[in-house]
Amino acid sequence: MYQARRIRLANLMKQKGQTGLILLLGNTSVSRNYQDNTYDFRQDSTFIYFFGIYQPDCAGIIDIETGDAYLFYDMPDESLKIWIGEPSYEDIEQSCLKGIYPRKDIVSFIENKPVHFLPPYTSQALLILAAILCEKVEHISKRVSHALIHAVVALRQCKDAYEIKEIETAVNTTIAMHKEAIRLARPGISERQVMAGITAQALSCGALSFQPIVTVHGEILHNHEYNKQLEDGQLLLVDAGAETITGYAGDLTTTFPISGKYSPEQREIYSIVLKAGYEAATMLKPGIEFKTIHCKACSVIADGLREIGLLKGRTEDIVTEGAHALFFPHGLGHMMGLDVHDMEGLGEDYVGYDKEPRSMQFGLRSLRLAKTLQKDMVLTIEPGIYFIPMLIASWKKENRCSQFINYDRVEKWLSFGGIRNEEDWLVTEQGARRLGQPFDKSCDAIEKLYAELHE
Amino acid sequence: MYQARRIRLANLMKQKGQTGLILLLGNTSVSRNYQDNTYDFRQDSTFIYFFGIYQPDCAGIIDIETGDAYLFYDMPDESLKIWIGEPSYEDIEQSCLKGIYPRKDIVSFIENKPVHFLPPYTSQALLILAAILCEKVEHISKRVSHALIHAVVALRQCKDAYEIKEIETAVNTTIAMHKEAIRLARPGISERQVMAGITAQALSCGALSFQPIVTVHGEILHNHEYNKQLEDGQLLLVDAGAETITGYAGDLTTTFPISGKYSPEQREIYSIVLKAGYEAATMLKPGIEFKTIHCKACSVIADGLREIGLLKGRTEDIVTEGAHALFFPHGLGHMMGLDVHDMEGLGEDYVGYDKEPRSMQFGLRSLRLAKTLQKDMVLTIEPGIYFIPMLIASWKKENRCSQFINYDRVEKWLSFGGIRNEEDWLVTEQGARRLGQPFDKSCDAIEKLYAELHE
Repeated sequence: MYQARRIRLANLMKQKGQTGLILLLGNTSVSRNYQDNTYDFRQDSTFIYFFGIYQPDCAGIIDIETGDAYLFYDMPDESLKIWIGEPSYEDIEQSCLKGIYPRKDIVSFIENKPVHFLPPYTSQALLILAAILCEKVEHISKRVSHALIHAVVALRQCKDAYEIKEIETAVNTTIAMHKEAIRLARPGISERQVMAGITAQALSCGALSFQPIVTVHGEILHNHEYNKQLEDGQLLLVDAGAETITGYAGDLTTTFPISGKYSPEQREIYSIVLKAGYEAATMLKPGIEFKTIHCKACSVIADGLREIGLLKGRTEDIVTEGAHALFFPHGLGHMMGLDVHDMEGLGEDYVGYDKEPRSMQFGLRSLRLAKTLQKDMVLTIEPGIYFIPMLIASWKKENRCSQFINYDRVEKWLSFGGIRNEEDWLVTEQGARRLGQPFDKSCDAIEKLYAELHE
Repeated sequence: MYQARRIRLANLMKQKGQTGLILLLGNTSVSRNYQDNTYDFRQDSTFIYFFGIYQPDCAGIIDIETGDAYLFYDMPDESLKIWIGEPSYEDIEQSCLKGIYPRKDIVSFIENKPVHFLPPYTSQALLILAAILCEKVEHISKRVSHALIHAVVALRQCKDAYEIKEIETAVNTTIAMHKEAIRLARPGISERQVMAGITAQALSCGALSFQPIVTVHGEILHNHEYNKQLEDGQLLLVDAGAETITGYAGDLTTTFPISGKYSPEQREIYSIVLKAGYEAATMLKPGIEFKTIHCKACSVIADGLREIGLLKGRTEDIVTEGAHALFFPHGLGHMMGLDVHDMEGLGEDYVGYDKEPRSMQFGLRSLRLAKTLQKDMVLTIEPGIYFIPMLIASWKKENRCSQFINYDRVEKWLSFGGIRNEEDWLVTEQGARRLGQPFDKSCDAIEKLYAELHE
């Protein structure tokens, strides 16, 4: 599998007239509060994809001419093995390598051949690249290979059967995490306790795919604090996902009532969010631009908010002018695979955009994925409605989009918070399939599940 | 509190004839598998100690002449606040700073004054220091301030009442983790499931102080894999600790039977380990060298292994020649505080050694702490006995210490595994006090606890 992927990559590069070597760095362990106290090791995703090797401190080279692959890796010596044991090298053996050499040999192996490498996203990788290429740290970014980025995106963006199976495993663990959150939530316990409980679910099957969001302030989009106590009447927004041992991610968001019953207002907003997601998902199919689907979700949200009197005017105009983005300031979704925001490290625009460049309009500028969908892409659909007091105050002060926004009415919703619903989808030949076991997100189903889990 | 500590630090530096500025870098968030997917943020411990500020991307400067402190920190702008909310700056307000400036001002603030800084343990810190000091990356280590390291160690190594309270909180959460491990363990579940469960205990009160060791192969000293199923008859070694929200660590090791009953052989070895720890702990008091206590534990272990026929000869000679280290190859303990191996990032020898340098003898060379104890030091006592097949084979091949080791008998114990017991102690005026709630580690008490938790 890994050899076949490497040959495809080499061929793609050859077709583009590229020659020389492809250098893919594996990750190193990262220090937390001193050198040897490291975070749990995570291999680089592109390295996993082309080598399937999960050891730290690896570097791989693929010869564009032949497709042959070489690993640069220092086996632990005897005295280190007393401390860490004899590692299993099954992954290295299965990678079908042409040769394995000590790390230090990489410089002489490269010699003066052209070297293609991806943008480093850690300081360690930056320093290692500078050392290997005998280049100043500040010049590394200029030497990144755009041809390689395009080739890697072209391969990684469409998932094969093995990958889809792994992603679905991650999504199922993620569903278990969200059900655990619903089981744990009740007035008096803290966001942190819920975060801890769902983290255990993820760790028992692998890892977290990202630091969970577990918050009664769903309107703070990337809130990673967990210091609030849960109170009766509040909603808890949980945006969290698991990662399989092999590195594949799941990513779901559920917003549910801490005491088990949505209030009428919560139901109203929740239903708009749910509808936006479902209408978007029915549009998924190869050939459609994801930006079109994002705009559809925006329209559903604009329609819904107009019906309850927060927006006014024609839905089409609201969306064109971006007035809905006061309540839905982020994008509808992103690709998902070995990274929860798949391949984001290669550059969001390389991954999410093909034809027209990213819009700079508020709301649209946060859309990570806009391009034409293909069969076997995996992506999230995650609309939301938020009442962000700071943003509302700032827009109101500028009188921004005041022909579309009933600011007086919005004032009454300032303490509402935020609701997001997120699901993971696979683009199929004819349309799309939601990944994972059944998990009904309707208000009624969530209330029923809460009641069952709290019996 | 933080201001007082900074003034003490400035005075210590002044006494040593130092002038200029002390530069303390806070940590930055660390990327996992792409730039924005970061690990949970951990502030640098020395930065916590002198500033008490828990935000990422801070730098602090203390003027040695005046003791005044300045923070270099960029507050998030309005558009970022939409995503992350309005941070609480309580910690910054309570730090009693003389001034707060944008990060970019740090270079002009320093001008040509002498700058004292600590060794960086992350690549980010290295790059930041290089940028601030306009210095090549490879020259940074040469410019580290040894005077500053000594001054920081002198202050951080003795804990004040607030710190002792925080550490004891961490130890109590750590005890809860270990009881949870005993509750969860049973044949058929995996090491990973136990690791997940105890991690949840730590996270619900703060964080892990390090990646837990949860293994049926206790003889692999730093085993961080969790892929084994627990089996009847095996021991599970759990070396794990919690960290409070404020950053203080706990660190305990418990080795207990997966089915709830120690076998006669397990009891035999366990009792020697326990005795070594207790005899060591009774020696703790200000003025004694920890190396002496380590050697006492070695003697108890040598005695015990001689009694069961694995070692032979005079205990004193066994320890002097280091033959016991075949079974106890690591040190008896380390300091503990804001880091689980306290201040290890400053250099182990600065922290653990004062008079004579570290011994290079196998066993002793792994002793992190050897120096004279002082009141209010916090440290671990963690003797162990391990049967490491690889190490035994290598010694036997060399006939190493064969006058002390009954290799024929040792052969019969090759599959035994390893046992370690670890407790956390505070050096007091008269002696020492074990930190945390009662947690009886005797075989009988552990078996009773197992039975109660499995009812």
